[in-house]
Amino acid sequence: MNDFLARLAGVIGSANLFTADTDTARYTTDQRGRYHGRPLAVARPGSTAEVAALVRLARAHQVAIVPQGGNTSTCGGATPDGSGRQLLVALERLNRVRALDAANHSLTVEAGMTLAAVQQAAADADRLFPLSLASEGSCQIGGNLSTNAGGLAVLRYGTMRELTLGLEVVLPDGQVLNALSGLRKDTSGLDVKQLFIGAEGQLGLITAATLKLFARPTAHATALVGVRDAAAAIAWLNALKDAFGDRLTTFEIMSEVCQNLLAKYHPGQLPFTAPWALLIELSDSGDSAELGERLVAWLAEQDMLDGVVAQSEAERQKLWQLREAMSETQKRDGPSIKHDIGVPSSAIPAFLDEAGTALEAAFPGVRVVAFGHAGDGNLHYNVSYTRPGNAELFSDEPRVNEIVYDLVYRHAGTLAAEHGIGQLKPHWLARYKDPVALAVMKTIKQALDPAGLMNPGRWL
Amino acid sequence: MNDFLARLAGVIGSANLFTADTDTARYTTDQRGRYHGRPLAVARPGSTAEVAALVRLARAHQVAIVPQGGNTSTCGGATPDGSGRQLLVALERLNRVRALDAANHSLTVEAGMTLAAVQQAAADADRLFPLSLASEGSCQIGGNLSTNAGGLAVLRYGTMRELTLGLEVVLPDGQVLNALSGLRKDTSGLDVKQLFIGAEGQLGLITAATLKLFARPTAHATALVGVRDAAAAIAWLNALKDAFGDRLTTFEIMSEVCQNLLAKYHPGQLPFTAPWALLIELSDSGDSAELGERLVAWLAEQDMLDGVVAQSEAERQKLWQLREAMSETQKRDGPSIKHDIGVPSSAIPAFLDEAGTALEAAFPGVRVVAFGHAGDGNLHYNVSYTRPGNAELFSDEPRVNEIVYDLVYRHAGTLAAEHGIGQLKPHWLARYKDPVALAVMKTIKQALDPAGLMNPGRWL
Repeated sequence: MNDFLARLAGVIGSANLFTADTDTARYTTDQRGRYHGRPLAVARPGSTAEVAALVRLARAHQVAIVPQGGNTSTCGGATPDGSGRQLLVALERLNRVRALDAANHSLTVEAGMTLAAVQQAAADADRLFPLSLASEGSCQIGGNLSTNAGGLAVLRYGTMRELTLGLEVVLPDGQVLNALSGLRKDTSGLDVKQLFIGAEGQLGLITAATLKLFARPTAHATALVGVRDAAAAIAWLNALKDAFGDRLTTFEIMSEVCQNLLAKYHPGQLPFTAPWALLIELSDSGDSAELGERLVAWLAEQDMLDGVVAQSEAERQKLWQLREAMSETQKRDGPSIKHDIGVPSSAIPAFLDEAGTALEAAFPGVRVVAFGHAGDGNLHYNVSYTRPGNAELFSDEPRVNEIVYDLVYRHAGTLAAEHGIGQLKPHWLARYKDPVALAVMKTIKQALDPAGLMNPGRWL
Repeated sequence: MNDFLARLAGVIGSANLFTADTDTARYTTDQRGRYHGRPLAVARPGSTAEVAALVRLARAHQVAIVPQGGNTSTCGGATPDGSGRQLLVALERLNRVRALDAANHSLTVEAGMTLAAVQQAAADADRLFPLSLASEGSCQIGGNLSTNAGGLAVLRYGTMRELTLGLEVVLPDGQVLNALSGLRKDTSGLDVKQLFIGAEGQLGLITAATLKLFARPTAHATALVGVRDAAAAIAWLNALKDAFGDRLTTFEIMSEVCQNLLAKYHPGQLPFTAPWALLIELSDSGDSAELGERLVAWLAEQDMLDGVVAQSEAERQKLWQLREAMSETQKRDGPSIKHDIGVPSSAIPAFLDEAGTALEAAFPGVRVVAFGHAGDGNLHYNVSYTRPGNAELFSDEPRVNEIVYDLVYRHAGTLAAEHGIGQLKPHWLARYKDPVALAVMKTIKQALDPAGLMNPGRWL
């Protein structure tokens, strides 16, 4: 290993190879504090050529590689194991804009740029890069790609997969796949870049990407609406799609339990409470006043319990802060068993009903905190008691998960809608995923990474 | 082989197994009349289970399979070779709607449904399935998937890949991959369905798909505008995106040569001629009158040579007919060497300029007919003389292609933007595609179809 590290230092420079615990500490514990790894070293290559040389060297020495972006995985996806034999590769020095083609609405960036920096690079050219999520200040575009990130505007703009035109990838054999492209249509062979999106670093190391940009919306109209049940929420979703088409950019829902938590920890912020609250945002070209008027006029004709429309950018930000405060607010109230599930939007009401009933039957007094991106079927469905610690619930976590996931799959859903699998959920994936699909995944892994050195011990 | 055919008849019924030339004729010549195949037989399975049994049987007998949808490939993608040993599998009997979930904006259909029937099934539920292309009355959804079809609304809605939520595929080993799904977000493992989209039947047989539906636009505004050059056309594209955002659904361009052909064969139909004509369509919720007024008001502020806005649905259809008449009009004027290329939209002006100059230098007097989906960078770029037959040009077809493709790739483009590779372009693919990408494709093919029985002799 000393020989390997010496050679690696020759490739990337010894200043970019960390072995002391004080230097590696910030890379080795995951964001949620759940996984603690002990890597052979942390390598910070500075270019695609250095990444490729690093991969070839690691392959020659049979050293496994764990790629890491902003270290914001919620499922241990970027934390090495405790063996001290895996090389953690941090992409953070690959952080440049390679090319901006505003007239083609495309932007080529390196994998280690933060999402916020990518958004800013687009905005500087009067364009929008629409991916937006809570950790955007620290998560990196390579991680967004490797987890096929979603976030707050999937309803309108799609996930990272839809936002990606091209990729550059260092393959497990050290070759560089150049699939960077600004093309929106290309039928010249298999679209090989698709393999690496959502692969969680198990098939290669993404080093750069060409991303789709959009015209920057100049108008926003934002409302918080209270409705009586989840079925009404989904009816609203579809009525909004009919009335406003692609202008509907965000459709988030929060249960009454969520609103009560917000009222407790952020008193005076919520304008009302209701069985379900909907955060609705339209965006468009033109000006906000006109769009706001259209939304107000439309809302006036709807049946709702309560509702407010933001009358200024400050009011709009206040509504968004309520939604964005949900995770932190819930954390303050104690730990919970989190699920990042998805079902068809049409199945949300039945799922919520059945899962709530089943959990209450198994764990009387249980509390469900449900909120999320209902516009694309993705719910954060978190389970706790109202008692501190929730120790008795955590001891039953597998049973809680089983109840939730059984119902998710009964409704043709997924146990991982946007957080991925990582180290947290491989056994659940093995249990619920179509076995033929799993076999195809393993065939692909075996074909591209026969030595099994790319992010091993995950789910491939 | 007789044993194989007898067993196959047992699986799908002898009424669905054609061996006589009179029965197989309509399957064995491609749409353009360029390829003539001689299959072992034509099989018409009626269910996924029959397709799976067929594939297992073919595998046991080492019989190669050529899948076929509506037989509308423009590059021989669905025509068997002349060996008499390949089994042509027509999916036309798998033509049912499996499930419609209007509240989830999703539709699950079998692969053999025509695109027009899928559009109609969506419309019957007051939803839009936006894929639209010239052959929609006969092409089938399985073929659209296998070629990652594009068409007239890619600018707004994306290609078939973006319109697909899930797939069911019979793999080369006869197993059925169930990746049908109505989910818009799913990070539970590799998105294996992506492998089969655009694979031209070389990795498996697509038997069903879950498709994305959209709210049906109720308003359309359509204009034909004349501008002075291709650079002005692209400036218009981006100004329209800024002004109208996602409402911009279609942005087609036609050169003056195209307009002159239309004037010759459809006299009196074109309202004007100009160096470049732009067909622009906006679509939206709300009503057409209001949208039309907004377009008229915007156009009044632009610098253009000429322009008309459709004042009625009949006028709108007339403008569309001009665009749709292009292929047939050109055919009436004689054969040409066709290219279905794509470059970044921003590169269209430079590409047209350089390619026109290079072709004129090599073939003085040559005529370029350029039109297409400039909104997504996809051009039909067809080369001919004005003399009948164009025999002297066809004898130089490889050189013509080389001039065009060299410039396409100099501008980071593609030699196949929507028609695929098929039998027509494998050698060009081998020449221009990134060799590492080609190697990855072949690795995937070898891993999933080691016996090489799925649509062999193409490009994998």
